Amino acid sequence: MTTAAYAAVDWGTSSFRLWIIGENGAILAERRSGEGMTTAATAGFSAILESHLRAVSAAPHLPVVICGMAGARQGWVEAGYLDTPAPLAAIVGAAVTVADDNRDIRILPGLAQRDEAAADVMRGEETQLLGALSSLEGGSHLVCMPGTHSKWVRVTGGVVEGFSTFMTGELFEVISRHSILSHTLANGGAFDGSDPAFASAVAAAVRNPALATNLLFSIRAGQLLHGLAATQAKARLSGILIGLEIGGAHGLAKAGSNICLVASGPLAALYQSALSAAELPSVTIDADDAVRLGLAAAARALWPA
Amino acid sequence: MTTAAYAAVDWGTSSFRLWIIGENGAILAERRSGEGMTTAATAGFSAILESHLRAVSAAPHLPVVICGMAGARQGWVEAGYLDTPAPLAAIVGAAVTVADDNRDIRILPGLAQRDEAAADVMRGEETQLLGALSSLEGGSHLVCMPGTHSKWVRVTGGVVEGFSTFMTGELFEVISRHSILSHTLANGGAFDGSDPAFASAVAAAVRNPALATNLLFSIRAGQLLHGLAATQAKARLSGILIGLEIGGAHGLAKAGSNICLVASGPLAALYQSALSAAELPSVTIDADDAVRLGLAAAARALWPA
Repeated sequence: MTTAAYAAVDWGTSSFRLWIIGENGAILAERRSGEGMTTAATAGFSAILESHLRAVSAAPHLPVVICGMAGARQGWVEAGYLDTPAPLAAIVGAAVTVADDNRDIRILPGLAQRDEAAADVMRGEETQLLGALSSLEGGSHLVCMPGTHSKWVRVTGGVVEGFSTFMTGELFEVISRHSILSHTLANGGAFDGSDPAFASAVAAAVRNPALATNLLFSIRAGQLLHGLAATQAKARLSGILIGLEIGGAHGLAKAGSNICLVASGPLAALYQSALSAAELPSVTIDADDAVRLGLAAAARALWPA
Repeated sequence: MTTAAYAAVDWGTSSFRLWIIGENGAILAERRSGEGMTTAATAGFSAILESHLRAVSAAPHLPVVICGMAGARQGWVEAGYLDTPAPLAAIVGAAVTVADDNRDIRILPGLAQRDEAAADVMRGEETQLLGALSSLEGGSHLVCMPGTHSKWVRVTGGVVEGFSTFMTGELFEVISRHSILSHTLANGGAFDGSDPAFASAVAAAVRNPALATNLLFSIRAGQLLHGLAATQAKARLSGILIGLEIGGAHGLAKAGSNICLVASGPLAALYQSALSAAELPSVTIDADDAVRLGLAAAARALWPA
């Protein structure tokens, strides 16, 4: 039987994931919970981590490598930022150590782009990226990591040259809940990327991004004048925001960059459809695999066998 | 002393304005309140109108011309829409009459653009536009009426050829209050169009509209990395949204159109600054004057002396 080598933790704002990794690299145990930074700031980071480690009977001295919001200023121990351009492998050297009597606990830093005209930050995605890069060829890549705050990263030869965050997921939530469109979207069902209303909205936003907030209002007018259904209205809202993001991010990339989508489940399917609607070919890497592989790469560098 | 000829009412979603106009066209009395459609839907349109008419001792048979949300489906009496392209003067012929024992009460219709790819509606702005046009030269005009839902109207020779609504004001409110930027903007003071943070944000959004939601996130990152102050953050949020609107609306206009801004007070000053930052010359017409002049033009056609 394989012995546990380390624990890998992806600690987000609202989620906690832990894997126990064996000496042969196998996943020996896995834990998921909603105890993200927001919960941990009150309940205590150490208490939450130890309770999950106890639940999988981890040895008291098993080392732990962590990425994500645990390293934010309002997190456990601030892990700062590495400035772009940054070779991704350098995040390991900039890890901070958490003072602990038993374990060796390291938190990986985020990345910062300090250029005032394009100030940007990420925390957690740099580790996902480190994992994703292991399965990509050389050359220039444009890596899309969709979510509440979607990140698009320009990488060449393992170096992050720059990146851009788009508030897509958050705007979808805020507009759905708090704007006049909340009436139009009320009781809308689930939609997916195969909905023509989604694909045409993506294409419209890519074609004329300056009309984005007009396209948003046209959802309301479409309901008033043409009885646009709530589910189609949701699909259009999503398509407009994702199309705006894709057009903007693609415009910043080096010509000939390969687009790589790092995502899982329904979000991966939605962005695959959006990239197709924008006529941009892409490959997909599973986001869960990517963050685990990134933490594994960091662990190998921190604690060589 | 001049005798009252009619009452003119601009009945918005959240505001009510009434003028008593004399036979010589002079303003004999004026009333303003927050009893818009939202309040009137409960309190009663007739009750609110009559209370304001009593307050200025209007004669029981004084006729009333109304524009705005009183004519919406959820308003007093539905006044429908005139379809674009529409000669503005035709709104008078499409006015509906409210059943009333004493007075002749007419509600003017809105405008609808039924093209599915650019579905749009306005209600109230068509009357403002009718008033604004009386002070414009011939030729093609691009008329900007900023607000919660900014309208940009393409007019040639008194005919509305098309128009586009941008959700600018509402997005500013919703993002300020409900997104992650609420923390960054908290306790920000007043800003105006002379703030360089506003002008540079307008220019950035006009230059690269596809980056709009990335520019929004850069406000948050600017606070984290460069200590961007809350007031500057508010100015940037406003500039990004207004710049996006201006770029989009201008892109739809006929080459050589004259830009006319119909606005009052601080909003007029803000849009004047934004149009300057976008290097687009414009003339300004006061919005309050415009709606009153539009209602007056309708009254003259409805009740010729």
